[in-house]
Amino acid sequence: MKFLNENFLLHSDTAREIYAGIANLPIIDYHCHLDPAAIAQNSRFRSITELWLGGDHYKWRLMRHNGVPESHITGNASDPEKFSAFCATVENLIGNPVYHWAHLELWRYFGFDGVISSDNAAEIYAMCNAQIEKDDFNVHALLKKARVEWLATTDDPADSLEHHIKIAEDNTPGVPAVLPTFRPGGALEIEKETFAAYVKRLAESTGAEIYRWQDLLSALERRLDFFAENGCKISDHSLEPPVFDPRAREDDAAAVLKMALRGEKLSPANIVAYKTRLLSWLGGEYHKRDWTMQLHMGVQRNNNSRMLGLVGADTGFDCVSDANFSPALARILDDMESRDALPRTILYALNPSADDMLATMIGNFAGRGIRGRMQWGSAWWFNDNKPGMAKHLVTLANHGIINNFVGMLTDSRSFLSYPRHEYFRRILAAQLAKWVDDGEFPRDMGRVGKIAENIAYFNAKNYF
Amino acid sequence: MKFLNENFLLHSDTAREIYAGIANLPIIDYHCHLDPAAIAQNSRFRSITELWLGGDHYKWRLMRHNGVPESHITGNASDPEKFSAFCATVENLIGNPVYHWAHLELWRYFGFDGVISSDNAAEIYAMCNAQIEKDDFNVHALLKKARVEWLATTDDPADSLEHHIKIAEDNTPGVPAVLPTFRPGGALEIEKETFAAYVKRLAESTGAEIYRWQDLLSALERRLDFFAENGCKISDHSLEPPVFDPRAREDDAAAVLKMALRGEKLSPANIVAYKTRLLSWLGGEYHKRDWTMQLHMGVQRNNNSRMLGLVGADTGFDCVSDANFSPALARILDDMESRDALPRTILYALNPSADDMLATMIGNFAGRGIRGRMQWGSAWWFNDNKPGMAKHLVTLANHGIINNFVGMLTDSRSFLSYPRHEYFRRILAAQLAKWVDDGEFPRDMGRVGKIAENIAYFNAKNYF
Amino acid sequence: MKFLNENFLLHSDTAREIYAGIANLPIIDYHCHLDPAAIAQNSRFRSITELWLGGDHYKWRLMRHNGVPESHITGNASDPEKFSAFCATVENLIGNPVYHWAHLELWRYFGFDGVISSDNAAEIYAMCNAQIEKDDFNVHALLKKARVEWLATTDDPADSLEHHIKIAEDNTPGVPAVLPTFRPGGALEIEKETFAAYVKRLAESTGAEIYRWQDLLSALERRLDFFAENGCKISDHSLEPPVFDPRAREDDAAAVLKMALRGEKLSPANIVAYKTRLLSWLGGEYHKRDWTMQLHMGVQRNNNSRMLGLVGADTGFDCVSDANFSPALARILDDMESRDALPRTILYALNPSADDMLATMIGNFAGRGIRGRMQWGSAWWFNDNKPGMAKHLVTLANHGIINNFVGMLTDSRSFLSYPRHEYFRRILAAQLAKWVDDGEFPRDMGRVGKIAENIAYFNAKNYF
Repeated sequence: MKFLNENFLLHSDTAREIYAGIANLPIIDYHCHLDPAAIAQNSRFRSITELWLGGDHYKWRLMRHNGVPESHITGNASDPEKFSAFCATVENLIGNPVYHWAHLELWRYFGFDGVISSDNAAEIYAMCNAQIEKDDFNVHALLKKARVEWLATTDDPADSLEHHIKIAEDNTPGVPAVLPTFRPGGALEIEKETFAAYVKRLAESTGAEIYRWQDLLSALERRLDFFAENGCKISDHSLEPPVFDPRAREDDAAAVLKMALRGEKLSPANIVAYKTRLLSWLGGEYHKRDWTMQLHMGVQRNNNSRMLGLVGADTGFDCVSDANFSPALARILDDMESRDALPRTILYALNPSADDMLATMIGNFAGRGIRGRMQWGSAWWFNDNKPGMAKHLVTLANHGIINNFVGMLTDSRSFLSYPRHEYFRRILAAQLAKWVDDGEFPRDMGRVGKIAENIAYFNAKNYF
Repeated sequence: MKFLNENFLLHSDTAREIYAGIANLPIIDYHCHLDPAAIAQNSRFRSITELWLGGDHYKWRLMRHNGVPESHITGNASDPEKFSAFCATVENLIGNPVYHWAHLELWRYFGFDGVISSDNAAEIYAMCNAQIEKDDFNVHALLKKARVEWLATTDDPADSLEHHIKIAEDNTPGVPAVLPTFRPGGALEIEKETFAAYVKRLAESTGAEIYRWQDLLSALERRLDFFAENGCKISDHSLEPPVFDPRAREDDAAAVLKMALRGEKLSPANIVAYKTRLLSWLGGEYHKRDWTMQLHMGVQRNNNSRMLGLVGADTGFDCVSDANFSPALARILDDMESRDALPRTILYALNPSADDMLATMIGNFAGRGIRGRMQWGSAWWFNDNKPGMAKHLVTLANHGIINNFVGMLTDSRSFLSYPRHEYFRRILAAQLAKWVDDGEFPRDMGRVGKIAENIAYFNAKNYF
Repeated sequence: MKFLNENFLLHSDTAREIYAGIANLPIIDYHCHLDPAAIAQNSRFRSITELWLGGDHYKWRLMRHNGVPESHITGNASDPEKFSAFCATVENLIGNPVYHWAHLELWRYFGFDGVISSDNAAEIYAMCNAQIEKDDFNVHALLKKARVEWLATTDDPADSLEHHIKIAEDNTPGVPAVLPTFRPGGALEIEKETFAAYVKRLAESTGAEIYRWQDLLSALERRLDFFAENGCKISDHSLEPPVFDPRAREDDAAAVLKMALRGEKLSPANIVAYKTRLLSWLGGEYHKRDWTMQLHMGVQRNNNSRMLGLVGADTGFDCVSDANFSPALARILDDMESRDALPRTILYALNPSADDMLATMIGNFAGRGIRGRMQWGSAWWFNDNKPGMAKHLVTLANHGIINNFVGMLTDSRSFLSYPRHEYFRRILAAQLAKWVDDGEFPRDMGRVGKIAENIAYFNAKNYF
């Protein structure tokens, strides 16, 4: 039997039956980092190297582990050289999700169902490029092939959203709706050297200067409205880590903002006071607009200063953080909930040691008669692998109601990454089947099939 | 095959053979929150809603997750409405322990071996209520049915123990012994606004005023003796988190107590000094009386202020805490051990990320020629599910001697929760069988059967 | 079928085929605590009690858990009494790795393939001692039997290495090379009362006084060179926990050293400044010499003061620590990497909750064209059990490239502990087979066999 086949990861008739019911459902990718310009312009690609390895730090990390020189990763080596170096890395990746993703990607987009190795790297390279050169190979075709119904990119409040607007105006049949996501990290990260410049950029996007706290809120309010007008219904925050000071008042935050804009040094308490009040206010704005708030935690970024200098951020030098944050996170949410201002919320963590904490944290704020109001989001980034996703599903089911889960997202920068939804659906089907096959849930295939469909597609459709 | 059947969770002949040997052993429930008044009065119930959903925050949390309005959870909706809302929640609970508990409970107490769903909610409601209305359906009957040999409730040192005394005097055949547990949290939690009032209440229970440290110790000593006279042999502490200051002296604690009783503001160091010395003293008192000390950790309580105001504490708004505490916990135990004052101790944590830490922490203080002296207690509360209990057993076995484990407790407020012991015994049998079936332990069924019996019943019988 | 047999832990033909390919490869034990004097002198043993139980705190802990009095563990009881107490402990150790180790050890060194119990303790004792009394039973024979190619002991920089030198001079055929490991903890742990005495000892080993920072570095440099001359290529650090202050300069460290040598009290900031700069400097020295640096974390030592006083350190009173340290660890490594001074590094943690953090931490510093440059080391000490090792392999594979892993070490003080490599190889074969049997990697047995060989032997051979 071929390595890649329709039964991949499905080990019982039950699993195969469940998977068959969800395999062809559309995809809602409510959190990704795709480039809206490339969608608006319906970009084409120079080679499989550009398309597949161009911005994928998951693959880069593995190549570095394997001793591939940086020249063949982000450097000046030729496209065939880089491709070959990747194939030589992937061939021994037993137990790594990139082994599965890479094979699923070549299978689903290029029809290659063999096994990647250094031996056939040149052959695969030529085969893929022959397809890439064809007239109908472009971003729109890739998105259609994946049956993406809508996707949400990640965008700065100061962004013009010109590409989102163009995509909406074009309204090309088969191209998914592309919604912006409001990610106001720049306005919150007052400790960064770039803060004043960011505030200036934000001010320019609204045409009004920002001197004071009220100016900042007004600017953000205008951008929230602008995003909403352009289809936004989701916000995104990376909290590294969450902080909250119950004594911080709006006046304190206003004073800290002035200090920062004057270039004064901020104390840790200043920073916490500012973040406390701004995030609290933002939560209320999301709630008012009926948006979903995403909070993600547990990452430690840019650990390698040398490589940050050489190749920049988001290039594969982040890791799991072991910081604790359950008290601060609870207070952030409690502060909003106490003011009737807590939006529907998805919590994510990169550190699987926080799994049970997060899976029970959402229970603290479930309620208000809203099914699935609080979500513990998909296993992503470093946890986006078979054991990580299975552990997420089991832990979520143990502490809550998996039938309400809004399911998978790609969190990806690559147009070839939609098979991660297939990967997730197979793992989901296998896990649901395991409960049934082990006698832990009745063999009521109608009910179990419906649960699978909800998680794979319908919950996300109804939730956002 | 029916969903519920005698082989539930037992997947090999080995597992079934082991389980058969322990299925009918009596139950010792050394830690629960049952209401002694209800036992003393041999209470009856208005309906299955009151009996089953009346105080069970596990079920309430899930209903909130599922979008059930609070009126149908803790509010004014009718009993049939609440029951129906719960059945509609439970029907899709694949992978959640409440799915198993709920079915085992209806099976074992009401003989219902079908599948709960919204379709048959009304039918189940009527069937249960018909039984509840019968003359012989009461608390005593429920406890007898579960074969409970003795149980330990959780009680405040100031409690009159009137119900425990009445139960002992009645000495009704078949009714388990009901022992009080000494839980002096009120005396330790000096940071709470309720502290002074609590000290007053404690003083009243002894008839002597409490002005100074020595008064407090005398009062507690009298209550310890009173509890001991009434069968108490276990204490219980929730440490959120454990704290210890090696420099704190009794004089410091005495001074802090005075400050607190005068209503002065305490610094964090004050609070730690007081708790250090009082817990240390209490440990010695337990040791002197040959009691067992329970310390539990890893919970973060009352996270939702709004719901705390509306429905009070212990209603489903707690979660796992990610606080670190291994140094403080070790010092608390070391301080007692150094003074030859460490009682037999059971450590519990709610955060499974602390599992290996706790499983090895007990090894630091094993010894003194006492088999199973230090225990890492059962997976409970949020971990009281199939993977959580199996992980606890495996981790305990890896780091210690599972044959010495005192086994399961319910930690429950519900008279229907004894099937959790059956749940545990099935999971235990399955895990022991797995080691044998996988060739990791010899197929010596006499020995393995004895290990199962020890964990299910005999260790608890001999330990306390 | 016998409990111990050639298929132990191997549950499929695939697993057995993989294991057959690695079962007889030599052993490289790059981290242990064997006594080089015993190897140099080719020691003999008084009894199986001395050989097997004499210094093994893993076994002692379990005996304490089981209620064995200290007299029969580290005390004055006779050899047969101690042996019998251990057998009575081991017989019920279902799920514990010592059950497997003990059986593998008696099987591989004494040919005993039965089941240890109190019933046959005397018989086993006599059988082992009869073999131990034979002329050819000695340390060299034990190491030859285990096919150890080379091993690395753990040594203080001030050590004379006389035994290592003698072993190298003797060059006895079949006796493995015995390399020293440079473990300069004494020079780093400036907070300890023993620091000044240690510095004196270090000075004496070089013949030059140490008054100032430069004297210390010169002394260490001479010892580094001396160790290198005697085959050392590995260093070892226990960081409890890692600390790093980016503002600490060499002048600060120099000042702190002076304070310490004058007996002045050090602040926490002083200690961190000193450790920051000394470890940073040491890393550069290792890098210069092309050594490997080992950093291990997550232990909390000497928790039981009473037993520390009675039987000393390293006797079974340590446990897993839950301290957080990802920021400090990243900065330590980043500081070296920024100065082109980061050696090949192996990170270990005792707390499995840190697994994903460490497995991704190494990705931050992978690169420089060196295959497997950064390693997340073997599951050891408390994690050196079947689920612990399997979890390590799976997590390592998820986040990196298991084909580059340098594999198992014993970390042991016992000459009978080499079957832990067999234990590891069986678990490794079973895990690789599982991926293949589950269709998660192609059934390319040539490739999978090569991966197994790399991890079992060849990676370590090439890495150090």
